[in-house]
Amino acid sequence: MKKNNNIQFLVMLFLGLAIHLSAQNHPNLILTKEGVAEIRKNIGTVPMFDKVLADTKAEVDAEIEIGVKVPIPKDMAGGYTHERHKKNWFILQKAGNLYQITGEEKYAEYIRQNLLAYAKMFPTLPKHPTDRSYATGKIFWQCLNDANWLVYVSQAYDAVYNFMSKEERDFVEKDLFRPLAEWISTENPKFYNRVHNHSTWGNAGVGMIGLVMNDEALIQRALYGLKNDGLDNSMVDNDGGFIKVEGQNRAGFFAQLDFSFSPDGHFTEGPYYLRYAMTPFLLFAKSLANNRPDLKIYDYRNGILEKSIYSLLYETDAQGRFFPINDSQKGMSWNSREVVAAVDIAYLDFGGDPMLLSIAQKQGKVTLDVAGFKTAADIEKGLTVPFQHQSIAYSDGADGKHGGLGILRADNPDGEEICVVAKYAAHGMGHGHFDKLSYSLYDTDGEVIQDYGASRWVNIDQKGGGRYLKENQTFAKQTIAHNTLVINETSHYKGKVKAAEAHHPDQYFFDIKNPNVQAVSAKELHAYEDATMHRTLILLKDKNFRNPLLIDVLKVTSEKQNQYDLPTWFHGHLVDANFDYAKQLNSLTTLGNDHGYQHIWKEATGKSEGQGNQITWFAHQNSGGGEMQGKLFTLTTSSLPGDELFFARAGANDPSFNLRPDPVFIQRRTGGNSVFASVVESHGTYDPVSEIPVSPFSQVKSVAVIHDSRAYTVVQITDKNEKSWTLAISNEETSDQANHEVKIGEKMFKWQGAYIIK
Amino acid sequence: MKKNNNIQFLVMLFLGLAIHLSAQNHPNLILTKEGVAEIRKNIGTVPMFDKVLADTKAEVDAEIEIGVKVPIPKDMAGGYTHERHKKNWFILQKAGNLYQITGEEKYAEYIRQNLLAYAKMFPTLPKHPTDRSYATGKIFWQCLNDANWLVYVSQAYDAVYNFMSKEERDFVEKDLFRPLAEWISTENPKFYNRVHNHSTWGNAGVGMIGLVMNDEALIQRALYGLKNDGLDNSMVDNDGGFIKVEGQNRAGFFAQLDFSFSPDGHFTEGPYYLRYAMTPFLLFAKSLANNRPDLKIYDYRNGILEKSIYSLLYETDAQGRFFPINDSQKGMSWNSREVVAAVDIAYLDFGGDPMLLSIAQKQGKVTLDVAGFKTAADIEKGLTVPFQHQSIAYSDGADGKHGGLGILRADNPDGEEICVVAKYAAHGMGHGHFDKLSYSLYDTDGEVIQDYGASRWVNIDQKGGGRYLKENQTFAKQTIAHNTLVINETSHYKGKVKAAEAHHPDQYFFDIKNPNVQAVSAKELHAYEDATMHRTLILLKDKNFRNPLLIDVLKVTSEKQNQYDLPTWFHGHLVDANFDYAKQLNSLTTLGNDHGYQHIWKEATGKSEGQGNQITWFAHQNSGGGEMQGKLFTLTTSSLPGDELFFARAGANDPSFNLRPDPVFIQRRTGGNSVFASVVESHGTYDPVSEIPVSPFSQVKSVAVIHDSRAYTVVQITDKNEKSWTLAISNEETSDQANHEVKIGEKMFKWQGAYIIK
Repeated sequence: MKKNNNIQFLVMLFLGLAIHLSAQNHPNLILTKEGVAEIRKNIGTVPMFDKVLADTKAEVDAEIEIGVKVPIPKDMAGGYTHERHKKNWFILQKAGNLYQITGEEKYAEYIRQNLLAYAKMFPTLPKHPTDRSYATGKIFWQCLNDANWLVYVSQAYDAVYNFMSKEERDFVEKDLFRPLAEWISTENPKFYNRVHNHSTWGNAGVGMIGLVMNDEALIQRALYGLKNDGLDNSMVDNDGGFIKVEGQNRAGFFAQLDFSFSPDGHFTEGPYYLRYAMTPFLLFAKSLANNRPDLKIYDYRNGILEKSIYSLLYETDAQGRFFPINDSQKGMSWNSREVVAAVDIAYLDFGGDPMLLSIAQKQGKVTLDVAGFKTAADIEKGLTVPFQHQSIAYSDGADGKHGGLGILRADNPDGEEICVVAKYAAHGMGHGHFDKLSYSLYDTDGEVIQDYGASRWVNIDQKGGGRYLKENQTFAKQTIAHNTLVINETSHYKGKVKAAEAHHPDQYFFDIKNPNVQAVSAKELHAYEDATMHRTLILLKDKNFRNPLLIDVLKVTSEKQNQYDLPTWFHGHLVDANFDYAKQLNSLTTLGNDHGYQHIWKEATGKSEGQGNQITWFAHQNSGGGEMQGKLFTLTTSSLPGDELFFARAGANDPSFNLRPDPVFIQRRTGGNSVFASVVESHGTYDPVSEIPVSPFSQVKSVAVIHDSRAYTVVQITDKNEKSWTLAISNEETSDQANHEVKIGEKMFKWQGAYIIK
Repeated sequence: MKKNNNIQFLVMLFLGLAIHLSAQNHPNLILTKEGVAEIRKNIGTVPMFDKVLADTKAEVDAEIEIGVKVPIPKDMAGGYTHERHKKNWFILQKAGNLYQITGEEKYAEYIRQNLLAYAKMFPTLPKHPTDRSYATGKIFWQCLNDANWLVYVSQAYDAVYNFMSKEERDFVEKDLFRPLAEWISTENPKFYNRVHNHSTWGNAGVGMIGLVMNDEALIQRALYGLKNDGLDNSMVDNDGGFIKVEGQNRAGFFAQLDFSFSPDGHFTEGPYYLRYAMTPFLLFAKSLANNRPDLKIYDYRNGILEKSIYSLLYETDAQGRFFPINDSQKGMSWNSREVVAAVDIAYLDFGGDPMLLSIAQKQGKVTLDVAGFKTAADIEKGLTVPFQHQSIAYSDGADGKHGGLGILRADNPDGEEICVVAKYAAHGMGHGHFDKLSYSLYDTDGEVIQDYGASRWVNIDQKGGGRYLKENQTFAKQTIAHNTLVINETSHYKGKVKAAEAHHPDQYFFDIKNPNVQAVSAKELHAYEDATMHRTLILLKDKNFRNPLLIDVLKVTSEKQNQYDLPTWFHGHLVDANFDYAKQLNSLTTLGNDHGYQHIWKEATGKSEGQGNQITWFAHQNSGGGEMQGKLFTLTTSSLPGDELFFARAGANDPSFNLRPDPVFIQRRTGGNSVFASVVESHGTYDPVSEIPVSPFSQVKSVAVIHDSRAYTVVQITDKNEKSWTLAISNEETSDQANHEVKIGEKMFKWQGAYIIK
C-alpha cells in the first residue's frame, strides 16, 4: 500500500466505501461497533480490563508465533487433535476480539488463515473416525464439540467479516460454515432436535453463524428446531438419557428455554451442567438481543435467563463450588470461564446487581468485551457489594411441579456457614442419580457429608478417554453411594432411568421465616413399590451450640418387613465411635453384590445397644500436610437396639482404581414403619500447627424418636447438660393454622403448624 | 491502701524503697528493664506489634474475666485439667509481658492470684493419678509438661516479682517453685538427667526459675545436671528410646548443647521435634545471655544455637512445613509459635538476617517482647528480603559423623520447586524410624512421594489420649512404611532400637556445585547382616523436561538370594499404569504378617515384562472439592522381567481406624546383587475448573540399568524422542580426580569423578 497514484487512490476510496457499507453490520454478534468504540476510548483506565487485554494478547501472540495448526481429526478428548481444535476455537474467538479492540491486523490475518485452512479441510472429512458417540462429529468425536467450535468461531468470523474478501467469505461459508451447520442439525437430528444441553449448543451454533451470515433459514432452525426429525421415544444417548421426553414435542432455542429450566431458573441436571449449558444460552441470547431486539429474548419466560444465572450462583458452597448433585466433577466452581462470562453479561444486561461485582473480583478476570469492560470499570469505581448466599428452594421441572432442591444456610457468630442441600428433584435426565431425598452437608471450607459426584476425570485421557467411567453407572449413580435410604439393597426405581423420569418427590414444606429454625421436608412415594419415604431436614441455631445443628428425620412407611440401609458419607477420617465395633483385620469382603454394594468394602461391623450412637470425624484435615484447620463433626443417631452399624469404604470391584477410597457409615435396620433421626454437630476444631483441639467432644448426648404414627413424628434431642429439644412433625397436614397434639408419656405435646421445635 | 496516716506513709515509703532496690533485677529473664522501656516508648508506631499487643490483651482479658482456674490435676492430654493447666502457662506468661509493657496492674494481680492458688494446691498433690509415663508429673501426666509449665510460669513470676510481697514470694517459692523444680530434677532423674528434648525442658525450667530466684544451686543443676542419677543403660522411655546413650556421660544444659545437635545444627530426632525442643534451648539461652553474659552462651560450640535455628528453617518444604522424618505430625510448620519465637530471637540476637523478616511476615505475628518488637519494627521499615531455601547437607550425630540428611532443591522456569530429601541419618533415638536410605519428594505445593510420619493425633483425646498410637510402632516406624528397600520382609535392624542406634549410614558424596545436576549418595552397611545398600539420588534440570527430574539408583549387594521390596508411597490417586495388573475385586488380604506388612492391604498384582514400567498419579488433587491445581507425576522404573509389581494400601490390622488409607506401589524382586533405578517426572497439571489437562503424559520412555559391577553402576534414561542420558556412578571411589571407564556394548564410557550424567 506504499504506492500512490491517482487510479489506485480512487480504487481504494471505492473499496473503503464498500467496506464501510458492509461494515455497518459487523461486528454485531457479541461485540458491537458501539461497544468496541466504548472500550477503545477507555483503554488504559481500568487496570483489571487492561490486564485481561494484555494476558489475552500474550496468549494469542504465542499461538500466532506457533502458526496455524489445523490437523486432520483423529483423537478422542485428551488426544492431540481434539485438544488442538478445542484450543483453536478459544484462540480464534479471542483473536477476533483483539482485532476489534486493538485494530491490529495480525489477529484478523490469523483468523483468516485458520478459516481458510478449515474450509479447505472440511469437505474432505468423513464422520470422525472414532465413531463412539450417539452423534459423532466431524472435527471432533461428537457433534457437541463441533457445535462448541461453531459457537466460538462464529464470533471470530463476525469480527473479521469485513477484513475478509467476498470470495474468501463465499468460500468459508460454502465449504465450512454451512455444511458444518447442516452436519450438526439436519444430519444429526438426535443431537440437534432435543431438549438437552447438547442441543442448546447445536441451536446456538447454527443460530449464531446464521446471524453472522444473515441466513434466516438457519436462524429459524436455531429458534424452532427441525420440523421433521424422525426421532422416536426409545432412543438414548451415551449417558443413557432419552432423546425424546414425553410432553416436550418442540425443539430449538425457545423450546430449550421453555423446558430446560424450572420457572425459578433451576436446571434439572444440576449446576455443574448448567454452567456448561449456560454459555450457548447466553451467547446466543446476547446475539439475538443485538440483532433481533423484537424477540425480547431477555424477557422471555419472565426473565428465565437472569433467573438461571442466579440459580447457578446460589447452588454453590461458601467457596463458590457447585453442589455436585447428579453427574458432576468436583472442584468446578463459579471461577470457571463460563461463569465469568455469565456474571459479566448479567451485570451488563440485567440491571447491574453490585453483588455480582464481588464474584467477578473473586474470579479475578472479566470477558474481553463490553460486558467485561463494564464489570471491571464498576469494580474500579468501588461499586462492589459482597455476594450473600441465601437459603432458597428451587422447584424442578419446566412446570416447577417436579420436586426441587432445598438449600438451608445458617452462620455461626464468626460468620462461618453450615449449609444443607436437600435433593428432592426430578431424575435429571441422562445425568441423574438415583438418590431421592438425599442430602449433603457443607461448612465454610467445603464438604462435610459428601455427595460423591460423578466417577469421571473430565478430559484425562488415561481415565477412559476423559469420559464417564463404568463405575459412574455401577456405583456413583446408585442409591447406596448417596446419603439416603436404600431398601432391600436395591436402588431407587431399581436404577432404571425411565421409571425414575416418570416420577419425582414432592416438597412437603420449606420454611425459612425464622432464621434460627429453617426447615425443608419432602416425600418420595414411588422409588419403591411397597414403601414411601418422608424426610425433614432442619438447621437449628441455638445458643447452646457453637454452630447450627443439622437435624434429620427420615420416616419410612411400609407394610412389609424390609432391610433398611442409611449411609452417611462422612468426609474425612474417623476419630471415634461410642459403640463397640469389630474391624476386619486380615481380610475384606464387599458389602453386597449389586446396586453399588459390590463397590463397597465392609471394614467394620457394630451393633447398636440403644439410642444415641455417635461417630466423630475430622473434616478438612489434609493428610497431605496442608495447613487447613481441621474440623470435628459428630453424628448422633437414634439407632435402635439391634441395628447394625457398618463402617465401609468405596473401592471394591474397581479394576482400574477409578473410585476414590472414601469412607461411609451405614445404619442397617430390619423393619416396616420406621424412623431414622439424627443430629450432626460441628463442634470442634484442630490446627496441626498449634496442636490445640478446641471442643473435641460433641455437646449432643442423644437423639430419640419418642413418637411415631401416621399423623405425627416426634424426636427428642438431649445435650450433655440434659437440656432437651423436642421436634414434632405433622406428617399429613402442612397448614400454618392447623393445631396438633400428641400424647408423650403422660403429657400432651401441642403445637400449631406443620412442625415445631422447642 | 486507701488509709493514710503518717506511720503508714513512712512504712510505705520504706517498702517502696525496698521494692525499688530489689526491682533492679526484675524483669531480667526474657524481658529486661531496658527492653521494656524501648517497647513502651514506641507503642503505636509499629502496626504488626501493636496488633499482637491488642490481640494478647483481648485473649488475656477474656481469661481474667473467666477468673482463676486451677483444677486438681486428673486428666490425660486432651482432657480438661490438662488443657486448662496448659492454657494457664501460656496465659500467665502473656499476662506477665502485658503487665510489663502496659503497666496495668490487673495482669500482675491475675498472675499473683494464680501463683498463690498453685502454691496452695501443689503440696497436696500426689504423683499425677494417671501414672502412665516413664516420668509422671504432678500438675500433668508427665514431668515434661510440668517442665513446660515451669519454663513459661518462671517468666510470669519474673514479671511480677516486684509486684508481689516478700511473704507471697516466700510462699510460692517454698510451696510451689522449689518443690516443683525438685520433682522434675532430683526426684525424676530419668526425666532430667538425659540428653533428650524432654530433659532440655527440665533443665530450662529448673534454670529459669533458678535465675528468677537467684538460686545458684538450681542454676548449676540446670547447666550441669545431677551429679548422681543412679540411672543405668537399660532404661527406656515411653517411646522405646534409651535413657542413657553410650558416650554421653554428662547431663544438663551444656550437655544438651553438646550432644543434641550435629556440628552444623541438625537435630537427630528431626525438625518436628527440634521445633519443640527449640523453645527451652532459646528461652534458657536468652535468660543466660541476660543474666550470665560471662557464659557467652550464644557463642557456645561455634554458635550452635544459631545454626540449629537455620536447620529448622531449611528442613521444610516450600510452604514451610517440616519434613516429617521420624515421628512427626504432618502439617506442623514454621508458623508454629515455637518458630515465631525462634525467628524473632534469631533476628534480634544473631545479626539481623533480613531473610528472617520474610518468615516473620508469613507467620503474621511476633513475640510480645523486645525480639518481636525489633522484628516487627524492621518489617515496618521495609528491610525484608525473601527467604531462600537451599540445597544443603546436614550431618548427624554430635560429632557430625553419624550420617545425615541431604536436601536437594531445584526450580522450574516458573520458580516452582522440586525437592528431594535423602535420609541417611542416625536412628534418631526413641522417635527414630527404621528407614535407612529412604527418601521423600516434594514440590511447591507439598508432598509427592510421602514420608508417612507418625501414627498419632497430638492432643486428640479420642485417639489414644493424643499420644503415640500402637500403629506407630507396628507400622509407621517399620521400613515398609517408607520409601526404601526391605529385604525378606524384615525391617532394618530387625526393628530393634538398640541395634539401629549402634550404627548409621554414611554419606558417600554430596554435590551441588552444578545447579543443573545435584546429587547425594549414601551407603548403609549394617541394616541387614547379609546385604549392603547404596543409594544415589540426583535432581537433573534439563531443557527437555519442564521440571527437574528425580533419578534414583538403589544398589543392593548380597551373596544370598533375597526377596527385595521397594515401596514408593506415591501421594495421590493412581491415574494409570503401563503394565497389566489384576486388582483384587471381591476380597482383600494383607501383604504379609509382620514388620508393618500386616497393616497393608494388597490391592493389585502385576508382573513386569521388562524395563520401563510406569505409574502415573495425581498429586494435590483434593477429592474434597478443593480448587488446588492437580499435578501429574510419573514414576518410571528399571524393573526386570519377572519382577512383581503391587499396588497396596495402608489400613489392615488397624482396629480403631488409626491409619490413613494411603496408597503405595511396591516393586518386588528376587535376587542377590541388584539395582533398582527409577525416574520421577512432574510433567502435567490439571485444574478442575478449566478441566484442561496440560502434559498428561510423561516424557520419559524408559530407565535401564546398562552396567552394574562392584566398581560401577550405569543407568540409561531415554525419553519419548529417543534422546538418552547416561548416569554412571563410581561405587568405590569418590575422588573428583579419579578417571573411570566402563565398556558398554562395544563402546568405552569414560568419565572423571564420583559420577557423571551426560
